Amino acid sequence: MRATVIHGERDIRLEEVAEPVLSTGGDAIVRVVAACVCGSDLWPYRGVTSTAVPKRIGHEFVGIVEEIGPDVSIIAVGDFVIAPFYDCDNTCVNCRNGVSTSCLAGGWWGADDSLGGFADGGQGERVRVPHADGTLVAVPGQPAADRVPGLLALSDVMGTGHHAAVSAGVTPGSTVVVVGDGAVGLCAVIASKRLGASRIVAMSRHADRQELALAFGATDIVEERGDEGVARIVDMFDGIGADFVLECVGTKESMDQAIRSARPGGMVGYVGAPNGGPELPVRPLFNRNVGVNGGIAPVRGYIEELLPEVLSGAIDPGRVFDLELPLSEVAEAYAAMDERRAIKVLLRP
Amino acid sequence: MRATVIHGERDIRLEEVAEPVLSTGGDAIVRVVAACVCGSDLWPYRGVTSTAVPKRIGHEFVGIVEEIGPDVSIIAVGDFVIAPFYDCDNTCVNCRNGVSTSCLAGGWWGADDSLGGFADGGQGERVRVPHADGTLVAVPGQPAADRVPGLLALSDVMGTGHHAAVSAGVTPGSTVVVVGDGAVGLCAVIASKRLGASRIVAMSRHADRQELALAFGATDIVEERGDEGVARIVDMFDGIGADFVLECVGTKESMDQAIRSARPGGMVGYVGAPNGGPELPVRPLFNRNVGVNGGIAPVRGYIEELLPEVLSGAIDPGRVFDLELPLSEVAEAYAAMDERRAIKVLLRP
Repeated sequence: MRATVIHGERDIRLEEVAEPVLSTGGDAIVRVVAACVCGSDLWPYRGVTSTAVPKRIGHEFVGIVEEIGPDVSIIAVGDFVIAPFYDCDNTCVNCRNGVSTSCLAGGWWGADDSLGGFADGGQGERVRVPHADGTLVAVPGQPAADRVPGLLALSDVMGTGHHAAVSAGVTPGSTVVVVGDGAVGLCAVIASKRLGASRIVAMSRHADRQELALAFGATDIVEERGDEGVARIVDMFDGIGADFVLECVGTKESMDQAIRSARPGGMVGYVGAPNGGPELPVRPLFNRNVGVNGGIAPVRGYIEELLPEVLSGAIDPGRVFDLELPLSEVAEAYAAMDERRAIKVLLRP
Repeated sequence: MRATVIHGERDIRLEEVAEPVLSTGGDAIVRVVAACVCGSDLWPYRGVTSTAVPKRIGHEFVGIVEEIGPDVSIIAVGDFVIAPFYDCDNTCVNCRNGVSTSCLAGGWWGADDSLGGFADGGQGERVRVPHADGTLVAVPGQPAADRVPGLLALSDVMGTGHHAAVSAGVTPGSTVVVVGDGAVGLCAVIASKRLGASRIVAMSRHADRQELALAFGATDIVEERGDEGVARIVDMFDGIGADFVLECVGTKESMDQAIRSARPGGMVGYVGAPNGGPELPVRPLFNRNVGVNGGIAPVRGYIEELLPEVLSGAIDPGRVFDLELPLSEVAEAYAAMDERRAIKVLLRP
């Protein structure tokens, strides 16, 4: 079969690789219907993180179950399934606590076995899914074609934006600022609206993303960044800042901006993998009672909650995919996202 | 009148100073019945923070209102009042949001006017209290002598321990670890028990403090610190750590220990003024979805909630005062706390 392999900086290739095979009793083999490129895939693509040896890549996909191991009892052959961006057994103590990203038996797509992961990445024709009963969520029936992008968004970006809002504790009638206008930030706007926020500010300086943010429920757009952006937010909200700030970027600068945009007693929900400063400044947090909560989003646990709304069209996170390419053009998909020609690219094998 | 003045490292003097006078329409003059020494008073005492010019010190006191300004309408002459460790108007947007430590009109006892504060410290015979109606809470009637230590604890340590537990979000049936066996940590044990925690671990290696922690509701004592302490906690709780960790010290080491003692998805409530590392390590927080919330405790807002329980004896945070001295021996009070001969010293003018 064909699958995407990253060889190094800006070197993405679709290659012929071995077919996945059932390896444990709990595995399933999923034929990928749609996959996509994540903002975090751009780190190795841009050389921010190094790629010592060629490796499989991609961690968001939906597809059809083709085979299951003898221990799989919930998922069945023929199911249309959503895979979160990791695998988990959904039974361990961390999964039961709602933190399936810390599953004691879990792993990461595309990680090699030496890292406790497994070889398959999501940007390929088929994927072996360990702990299929815990990892996968079957969609009732076969979804309409126009729902597939929204379902694919549940594998990462929609659940991650939701996690930012849930971690911050967004409440009905509250004020929310979303830092980051990528797919996750835009989904955080959807999540804030779902949770009843009365004001939702999207920080964005790109017309297409502003438009989508407004369509998703943002009430205000702020183009300024850094000190100017913070000043605008403080000015908008009683001279003190917003109740909740959702940090969806992961740089030191964006986190700093998020912390300073929260009012005293406010909360920052953060889901941008920390890529800049390794530390959070404690004094601005402590002196103003601003809390920080979030992390690698345990999206598996959110799929059941969000799925009916995607299927009904009540929310449409699939709109973050503004470019669709065949898997054969995966290298162009990376380039388009790297060069910000696309918010997020959907790939069809 | 006599009041305490710090002149520099280990140089605490009781001096004759000017009587306080009503300066704004909203002031009250309070005759101090009981005051105390705070762990944070030890910073300038130990020279950790420098004292450029002699200044008044002390920020915890209860007393009787002797005079009020013409704009004071809630507080009356003769009231027995509790003063939080700061003043606040209790009407501004931050006060209404429950963060009276960020009161837009507030200030700090003993801060000089150039810092937006006012001159009086709490370790004296009388104190001018700005925003008396907002700052002070009157106790119904005149309290029995044996309730005075408990009421004094509401000026800081009990409310601060409570804030750690509230900031973490301690829930009924949860597991809690308290890092720090000072007066605040011990009060955090009381707070955790009030909020219904089923297991409360006090990290302490001092027999007298262990005993008090157990009396306050701790179910377990752990003497180990650092890596060993973390290993004990992780081992006690499903191999993953506790639901909530209350950091009541403020050093880099104690915060690190607190973060690593929380389970994935857990929460650290912190109230120890950050005195060590200026930053929080973001990766151990992000990767495990451990949140951090807390700060300078807005104790003013907690007094009404906790006061009835102190008056009824349902909670007795006054037991943290294990040494009582006349104000004339204030220098010895500092020395006793500095040398850990006392948990907390109560001073009577």
